[in-house]
Amino acid sequence: MVKELNPSIRVLMGPGPSDVHPRVLKAMAKPLIGHLDPQFIQIMDEVKEMARQLFQTENQITSVISATGSAGMETCFVNLLEPGDEALVCVSGVFGNRMCDIVERCGAKLIRVDAPWGTPVDPAKVKEALEKSNPKIVAIVHAETSTGVLQPLEEISKMVHDAGALFLVDAVTSLGGTPVKVDTWGIDAIYSGSQKCISAPPGLSPVSFSPKALEVMDSRKTKVQSWYLDMSMIRNYWAGAKRAYHHTGPISMIYSIHEALRIVLEEGLEKRFERHLRNHQILRDGLESMGFEFLVAPDYRLPMLNAIKIPAGFDDAIIRGRLLNEYNIEIGAGLGEFAGKVWRIGLMGESSSLNHINMLLSALRQIMG
Amino acid sequence: MVKELNPSIRVLMGPGPSDVHPRVLKAMAKPLIGHLDPQFIQIMDEVKEMARQLFQTENQITSVISATGSAGMETCFVNLLEPGDEALVCVSGVFGNRMCDIVERCGAKLIRVDAPWGTPVDPAKVKEALEKSNPKIVAIVHAETSTGVLQPLEEISKMVHDAGALFLVDAVTSLGGTPVKVDTWGIDAIYSGSQKCISAPPGLSPVSFSPKALEVMDSRKTKVQSWYLDMSMIRNYWAGAKRAYHHTGPISMIYSIHEALRIVLEEGLEKRFERHLRNHQILRDGLESMGFEFLVAPDYRLPMLNAIKIPAGFDDAIIRGRLLNEYNIEIGAGLGEFAGKVWRIGLMGESSSLNHINMLLSALRQIMG
Repeated sequence: MVKELNPSIRVLMGPGPSDVHPRVLKAMAKPLIGHLDPQFIQIMDEVKEMARQLFQTENQITSVISATGSAGMETCFVNLLEPGDEALVCVSGVFGNRMCDIVERCGAKLIRVDAPWGTPVDPAKVKEALEKSNPKIVAIVHAETSTGVLQPLEEISKMVHDAGALFLVDAVTSLGGTPVKVDTWGIDAIYSGSQKCISAPPGLSPVSFSPKALEVMDSRKTKVQSWYLDMSMIRNYWAGAKRAYHHTGPISMIYSIHEALRIVLEEGLEKRFERHLRNHQILRDGLESMGFEFLVAPDYRLPMLNAIKIPAGFDDAIIRGRLLNEYNIEIGAGLGEFAGKVWRIGLMGESSSLNHINMLLSALRQIMG
Repeated sequence: MVKELNPSIRVLMGPGPSDVHPRVLKAMAKPLIGHLDPQFIQIMDEVKEMARQLFQTENQITSVISATGSAGMETCFVNLLEPGDEALVCVSGVFGNRMCDIVERCGAKLIRVDAPWGTPVDPAKVKEALEKSNPKIVAIVHAETSTGVLQPLEEISKMVHDAGALFLVDAVTSLGGTPVKVDTWGIDAIYSGSQKCISAPPGLSPVSFSPKALEVMDSRKTKVQSWYLDMSMIRNYWAGAKRAYHHTGPISMIYSIHEALRIVLEEGLEKRFERHLRNHQILRDGLESMGFEFLVAPDYRLPMLNAIKIPAGFDDAIIRGRLLNEYNIEIGAGLGEFAGKVWRIGLMGESSSLNHINMLLSALRQIMG
């Protein structure tokens, strides 16, 4: 017989999941109710309202996809693209590449604007690409989790709207840890994940769509290729006058994000963003004093995800293995071209604390000498 | 500020979610670990092995989709169908219709075999349709949650294989409550849901694919239209020698199904199926003694979902509302053509008990006189 679960108490300092507050774990263990229970409808309404505050938006169509951030990404593309449409995707890491993969699966024409991994995408290159094309959407990653780059959005947003396109943004890692101003920045479609700076368990993806995006969805000629991610039905479940059954809402997970969002808003967005920035600076100073170098130039570093170069002479897997097995600390490996060369240290949500920083720096000193 | 969650303690006797054991709620509240943590990989392996026992299969490709049962449905279709393929779908309720919708979204040619709602699909009609077509897959719902019909599968399975097609089965409501013999019955692709007879919270979909289905997936000419549900990547995360990152696994939900599957196997499949059948008979006798009539003929009734006709002169919404508000008991409304005419009473997993039956029958007597 399989034994009862007994997971170790890990210190989660990778690219997500981040540590969750005991209040969030406790919320998940609350009594299950039905997915059409009036009490659950109220919980969904509260989650929507709190998600709007976090996204800094008035968007009516703001809800939570019943699957992880990658499903949120797919939701945005499959609802806005139809076969034959053009989509311009800015790529500077794994998640930009994933967007391209999804665009092609939509039967849309892909236009790529690439930047070297570890740098942001240059607005001038986006402008150039927009002059030669006529995309329906322009997509970009706000916080590229694979490289630790924070992508400035405002200048590109303006170009996108001048070109008459919709602006689609990946905020999986940024939301809840750094400002994400959906309305001010003119973002038309955005998705995030529950397990990063919101500090809920993985499994949910908050999304939001502007009225303009909604118009585009409402004037589709073809059905959305994914039944599960079809916003025309999901929004009737999340926002319809009579809540229509679509799929069975993931009750316990919604409990968890409800409590996590309450914690985010109790702290306050500005304070939370300052905490993430301050802790990033403290970690940075500590790492630099030990001789580590950052992958990303100072102006474009994410506060919640620190990509550092593994010093010559040290083995990636051995050191991460020792951190996990001897200290219960998880940090992230490099992805793609940075595999074996870079570590990704997360300071997300509950994991963005002085104690986390001190545990990690002390352990690294003890292991690396 | 939004207040802390305080859901009522409901008695869940609808079409799912069912009640969950406190051990399952407790498992969800266990410390979060990373989705690539060796401890989590072991947990995934244990879940896979337990799911194989429940599906009664040796299928190597047996895993859990990180979304609800409807996403499991979509997973089976999008991985097996390519544009232009033919798919034959047997329809006798909401979930057969949902299959048709997904087939069309795959760009496949749909052939329908319909049966009146409340009856099973006639194998002779399937045979007739197979003689006039050449489908790649034949799909059918084992337990039609919208009508309470148990569909016999063995005779149809033989026809499907004689015709050289793959046999795709919806076992969302049946798995864990009545025998589902994937290998013996020659099922090539099957999906279920966590929140019915497995009695875990909603949010996960166990799936399994036969070696023949795997061959079909491996010889695709086009990419699977859904990135999130692409089994060629999901299986590398769930079963690859080196577990490759695809999406972030929903850790806490996997904890919940791990514990729920342990409980299922502790009871033993045969005993569990007997319990579901016996409790269905006791509920049936009680309801019939009160004058209720079943929608479905005796030979085809589901043990875990009892569809009964609402007697003339009683208002659907008022009585369900009183059950919920005065007794905390949830039962299911009718769907589609049965809205307002039928109630669906679930006796699934933890909700299949003498006490549940007695609570409901007593409450109905008190309300309906």
